[in-house]
Amino acid sequence: MIGRRGAVRAVRVQRHRGESAERARDDVAVEEPLEIRVSSVVPGGDRISEPLAVTMRTPGDDFDLVAGFLHGEGIVASAEALRELTYCRGDDPREKQQYNVVEARLSPGVPFDASALRRNVLTSSSCGICGRASLESVEATGCVPVRSDLAVEGELVAALPELLRERQGVFARTGGLHAAAFFDSSGSCTVIREDVGRHNAVDKVVGHLLLRRRLPASDGIMAVSGRASFEIVQKVVAAGVPILVAVGAPSSLAVDLAVRFSVTLVGFARDGGYNVYSGEERLL
Amino acid sequence: MIGRRGAVRAVRVQRHRGESAERARDDVAVEEPLEIRVSSVVPGGDRISEPLAVTMRTPGDDFDLVAGFLHGEGIVASAEALRELTYCRGDDPREKQQYNVVEARLSPGVPFDASALRRNVLTSSSCGICGRASLESVEATGCVPVRSDLAVEGELVAALPELLRERQGVFARTGGLHAAAFFDSSGSCTVIREDVGRHNAVDKVVGHLLLRRRLPASDGIMAVSGRASFEIVQKVVAAGVPILVAVGAPSSLAVDLAVRFSVTLVGFARDGGYNVYSGEERLL
Repeated sequence: MIGRRGAVRAVRVQRHRGESAERARDDVAVEEPLEIRVSSVVPGGDRISEPLAVTMRTPGDDFDLVAGFLHGEGIVASAEALRELTYCRGDDPREKQQYNVVEARLSPGVPFDASALRRNVLTSSSCGICGRASLESVEATGCVPVRSDLAVEGELVAALPELLRERQGVFARTGGLHAAAFFDSSGSCTVIREDVGRHNAVDKVVGHLLLRRRLPASDGIMAVSGRASFEIVQKVVAAGVPILVAVGAPSSLAVDLAVRFSVTLVGFARDGGYNVYSGEERLL
Repeated sequence: MIGRRGAVRAVRVQRHRGESAERARDDVAVEEPLEIRVSSVVPGGDRISEPLAVTMRTPGDDFDLVAGFLHGEGIVASAEALRELTYCRGDDPREKQQYNVVEARLSPGVPFDASALRRNVLTSSSCGICGRASLESVEATGCVPVRSDLAVEGELVAALPELLRERQGVFARTGGLHAAAFFDSSGSCTVIREDVGRHNAVDKVVGHLLLRRRLPASDGIMAVSGRASFEIVQKVVAAGVPILVAVGAPSSLAVDLAVRFSVTLVGFARDGGYNVYSGEERLL
């Protein structure tokens, strides 16, 4: 039952509806670990490979996921910083596990210090750890306020949730995936990605844009099927996207981060209505 | 705007509904970082304190959160392993940030190796990283299949989502929080917790039970407002809870883990119906 490829897997299920119960087959969203490794050229000229993180994700678009993840962490600023993305082969060729480890080979001259990443998170503010320290840590990764002249019609914002839902192929079968998508100002969908993890879905979209040299993506809108938390806004800021539309609720720190980095934050976009938490000037 | 205590914060918002737009106040769920530190007695007798993780959480029940988190990671097996849980004071007494750092002081004799935790995740299987390796990593933290004679009426399972929703005080105001709750076999709610992170909500419930010496909680049901992923099932297994009822969808690896560790996994519990993905024998 384990290890198959694809975003969906059939399982047996017993369905209970009122008094009735029936055996059936059901599709569930696939969740598998992905190890992200980073290979970099260290002082002296040697190339070393280090594990950076393991994320539970839905297989598919793994290179986009890794590129987007590294971008959100401030490791990879542009496509040029990435020399190559490859699946790692396992030691035993009989085991088909090579699709759960991706190595990102950084270009020479791109610095990488895994332990510094962790220190940054923990000691980015003189006042200790707090919401303000979290905002400062975003600046520490090199993020700046989003600059964009983009302005869109409120009608488009109201229509986005439906445009997103229409394109959610796997969700329709499993009810179990988060989606993220990038739309241009005319409402045309550039890229949509689904994943069991909502951060992963956004990483896949950002990675797609990065690898196609479309960052900063200051000419469009990120739409997400779930809630807007600090980390989601952080990724949107890093990608230079001026407008974030969430079907769900924003958190307090998501609002703070959007205000600080000039992102237009829309929440509760559903049933034709929506709430604007920051940056109203971009909505006509 | 940042750093206030409490689970809810008022923000300004512009509400758009059809043609109309109005300024209003809205409540959003508070999201703040919490640094988890672990103090342990190292060989030689000295006590050292190390940062273990930072989680973005909704303030409240932080000690439960930390206890549950450490339990899920296999660091703390019982209340006896925890000598004390304290908020850390910042260096500058004028800054009120001490509520975002919790230190768990382990009892003497309780081993702790932060770097080993990370290695475990990455190298728990000879076959490399894969779904199977993830299941094996759960065994590596000391988890065993859940043993329980609990059996409950299907009617109770169908009623749980409504029982959960009724008790979600903050959700009602913000629409932005996940909930987890532990119910006994009569449908009485032992503890309910809400958080912007669904893992945190479960950690808070498990930590509450742990600190009251109620683990393994083999006599009741965990209900969660969202989806059932690998990590949620992992925490339920670690707590010895025999039945998990999720309002949302399960992932493939959640189903695998539930099967392997004898957890009854119910998904899509809503509108009076539900799907059983494993362990039907506990439902009457």
